[in-house]
Amino acid sequence: MKRIFFSPFFLFCTLFLTAQSSGPSKIEAYTESHSGDIVHEFTDFLSIPNVAADTAGLQRNAIFIMDMMKKKGIGSVRLLPARTAVIPPAVYGEVLVPGATQTLFFYAHYDGQPVNPAQWNNALQPFTPRLISGSIDKNGTVQPFPADGKINPDWRIYGRSASDDKAGVDCILNGYAALRASGITPTANLKFFFEGEEEAGSAHLDEILQQYQSLLAPGLWIICDGPVHQSGQKQIVFGVRGDAHLDLTIYGPARPLHSGHYGNWAPNPAMQMARLLSSLKDDNGRVTVKGFYDDVIPLSPAEKEALAKVPSPDKQLQEDLGIHSPETPGLSLGEAINQPSLNINGMQSGNVGAMASNQIPTQATAVIDLRLVLGNDWKKQQQKVIDHIRAMGYHIVDHDPTTAEKRQFAKVIKIIPGTDGYNAQRTSMDLPIAKKVIAAVASSTNRPVVLQPTSGGSLPLYLFEKYLHAPTISIPVANHDNNQHAENENIRVGNLFDGIATMAALMQIK
Amino acid sequence: MKRIFFSPFFLFCTLFLTAQSSGPSKIEAYTESHSGDIVHEFTDFLSIPNVAADTAGLQRNAIFIMDMMKKKGIGSVRLLPARTAVIPPAVYGEVLVPGATQTLFFYAHYDGQPVNPAQWNNALQPFTPRLISGSIDKNGTVQPFPADGKINPDWRIYGRSASDDKAGVDCILNGYAALRASGITPTANLKFFFEGEEEAGSAHLDEILQQYQSLLAPGLWIICDGPVHQSGQKQIVFGVRGDAHLDLTIYGPARPLHSGHYGNWAPNPAMQMARLLSSLKDDNGRVTVKGFYDDVIPLSPAEKEALAKVPSPDKQLQEDLGIHSPETPGLSLGEAINQPSLNINGMQSGNVGAMASNQIPTQATAVIDLRLVLGNDWKKQQQKVIDHIRAMGYHIVDHDPTTAEKRQFAKVIKIIPGTDGYNAQRTSMDLPIAKKVIAAVASSTNRPVVLQPTSGGSLPLYLFEKYLHAPTISIPVANHDNNQHAENENIRVGNLFDGIATMAALMQIK
Repeated sequence: MKRIFFSPFFLFCTLFLTAQSSGPSKIEAYTESHSGDIVHEFTDFLSIPNVAADTAGLQRNAIFIMDMMKKKGIGSVRLLPARTAVIPPAVYGEVLVPGATQTLFFYAHYDGQPVNPAQWNNALQPFTPRLISGSIDKNGTVQPFPADGKINPDWRIYGRSASDDKAGVDCILNGYAALRASGITPTANLKFFFEGEEEAGSAHLDEILQQYQSLLAPGLWIICDGPVHQSGQKQIVFGVRGDAHLDLTIYGPARPLHSGHYGNWAPNPAMQMARLLSSLKDDNGRVTVKGFYDDVIPLSPAEKEALAKVPSPDKQLQEDLGIHSPETPGLSLGEAINQPSLNINGMQSGNVGAMASNQIPTQATAVIDLRLVLGNDWKKQQQKVIDHIRAMGYHIVDHDPTTAEKRQFAKVIKIIPGTDGYNAQRTSMDLPIAKKVIAAVASSTNRPVVLQPTSGGSLPLYLFEKYLHAPTISIPVANHDNNQHAENENIRVGNLFDGIATMAALMQIK
Repeated sequence: MKRIFFSPFFLFCTLFLTAQSSGPSKIEAYTESHSGDIVHEFTDFLSIPNVAADTAGLQRNAIFIMDMMKKKGIGSVRLLPARTAVIPPAVYGEVLVPGATQTLFFYAHYDGQPVNPAQWNNALQPFTPRLISGSIDKNGTVQPFPADGKINPDWRIYGRSASDDKAGVDCILNGYAALRASGITPTANLKFFFEGEEEAGSAHLDEILQQYQSLLAPGLWIICDGPVHQSGQKQIVFGVRGDAHLDLTIYGPARPLHSGHYGNWAPNPAMQMARLLSSLKDDNGRVTVKGFYDDVIPLSPAEKEALAKVPSPDKQLQEDLGIHSPETPGLSLGEAINQPSLNINGMQSGNVGAMASNQIPTQATAVIDLRLVLGNDWKKQQQKVIDHIRAMGYHIVDHDPTTAEKRQFAKVIKIIPGTDGYNAQRTSMDLPIAKKVIAAVASSTNRPVVLQPTSGGSLPLYLFEKYLHAPTISIPVANHDNNQHAENENIRVGNLFDGIATMAALMQIK
């Protein structure tokens, strides 16, 4: 009975194994026989809260990772704290191979995005990992974790950072464990580096890279973060977008007013915010901020060629997500992520639903996310939006305005530009090491590997270039529909095990 | 020391008393000697939660009011439940005066608006009444309630329904208690009627008025709800605006998406909502919905004349509230509340502040409040807005759309038109009973009484006209800056005691 129940998993493994060389098949044999321990260790890891505000939780995560590394035979395990902020430290370990002439750094991060438990599915909690028979949005239900870890690869484990990015930490460390247990010697020196404040803007990463430069260079940095291609094909990503934020608050009356007694006399900050936000884009989703698309460095011929070969996920995504047409008619997802973007991450004024009341709210708030491509400067990009708002007649302040200030100016807005922004980064696909990486990943799969000039997402990869003169290449493992950064984050079990094989293949780079 | 501390209160009473006839001065003497009991009873009343969702709390409020009435010597105390909804019932009592030829009904409501405790000042909780030395927005601090109830009249009692509308219940019942204790016989039969679902749209008031018609007609209904004039002058209001709501939800991707990986490809519902909301008004705050200002019955000459005499509170309000200029340049508050209005009561999408994350939200919600003047039909007014949204290209549904529906239509919106709307109502200032009411209120104050053709706020007063053929006149007691319907609701202590005198004066109508 059990065998029949788990047959999709065995089918998956069989298909996978037939396509592999002897290296990966040993890796697969290892993960299959150790799947119970791997899943158990992973859920223990997900149970440790890892939001930026919880420094105790972040510390526990770092200690957990150190223990994982030691158990797997990794040497020189230690914390790399920044001099000016001890928590959260990076976690470091290494495997030096006699005679190796190259070094690979494996990067992942162990911190997660903030959580709002009320927005998660009733069956889920951010830090209580749950096994679900498929996607919870598609009628998946809670299942017990089997002791042997043999799980249908299409089932999913839910919890904050299940995909972003504890899966990265897990695949890297188990990739090495599998290699070692299989008696395979890595072809390069391996160095492991796990960051603890990526989701908080990597505020101390520059300091850490400088401070421990002798440990962290030279070599290629493999960044294990983000999702594989929407088709399920493995993907190599040669760049990332930059990122910057703006927090906007518009002010209404000093105290909430009754919308009957004062409605349409007192200006309503929610309406003012709606007018401001809608001014930022035209009807076709194009950003109307002056100069927004300037400064962009175009793709190289090789990058354009790679992009043209990326299988289009657009139709499938539109079906899955219920999207009639993209925000800008005719713009494909591949084209969209190669442009700078502007998004509303959240907006709020007064109350809605059961708590709604007949009032003119005292303020309206919105959070704007800017993504940047190569050539954009993040502070300059923020400034373009600020200039746009000023040109609309707003008096801009950096504090909650006094009643006198509000009396003085027709339109007052508090703008807090995020200080944790950074620029985009792109590594050339033509580098010899890039070609080796492509070959290694290709050896671990029987489907074509997707090559992307850039990810839509962001990581502060420019820091590795700036402080270590190191190239970076991103090799993600998570399923594309993982809800990263939002409620109901999850990892497809097949992706977790597949990611272990990918990392083990990279450790055997030719 | 105590006497010096309380001197503003005594000064206030002295000024007040010198202006009164012997009737009100007896009333004042009573309230002064019973102020401890009055305040204590009022704070007990405010401690009983009264939001619509809390049927047990509403029942406790009704029982509390029955006990108050019995203690004050009011007869025939009973609950008037609707046949189709027993909770919340209206609470009824009466004082029949031998030989009286007219009947006055005193209306107030004991239910309150929903509360969001997180939005209240840290020192306050909605159902834990607190005495504050002035307005909490202007550095007022928490003070102990003095046992004798002798409180600076400019201090305030904070709590949900402190002004809207438990103050109404309290002033009416203590007005009668003061009269009775002073040995003054009312000049009319007095009937008391306290509603329990005004803030929930008075869904069963029509049923109750029909069911108990023989108890509730004929006679004039005095509606004790809303604020006095912003100048602090007593105010008589001859009408109310109607009210109607629309709940709007616009849908984004089926699951929250990473704003980097999908930003500017997947349409963002927050941006769509901003565009929709901003389309509802022009740059001058005028509603752009087709026909929005049609159907309005103009003011009569007498009403225009009264309106012209209303002292303008605009400048004072602009100073207090930090308003540079009104929403529509040149439109006074008095003019604004004599027009239909459209306001955003709340809007929400994704998260802001510490819970903000880099996502494209799955939906954006807004609550629209429409106020109506005489001539507007509330369902027609809702329909005008719905037609506007349809003309913008939205496919309108009454349920959360399926993925297939979202695939089919470029723009999908769920519109839930509130079913609890009602029309405006206005009583003629020329009626003989209206003139008697004006005289009675004038006898209780040494300042001019403000006569308003309509309140900006809403009450379903058309029901009294429709089912009882009864005129209604509103006599409010609360301070204008009471935060009704929002966080930090409060009543100025002077207004509470002043309101008792007003109600006692009305019970002696000539």
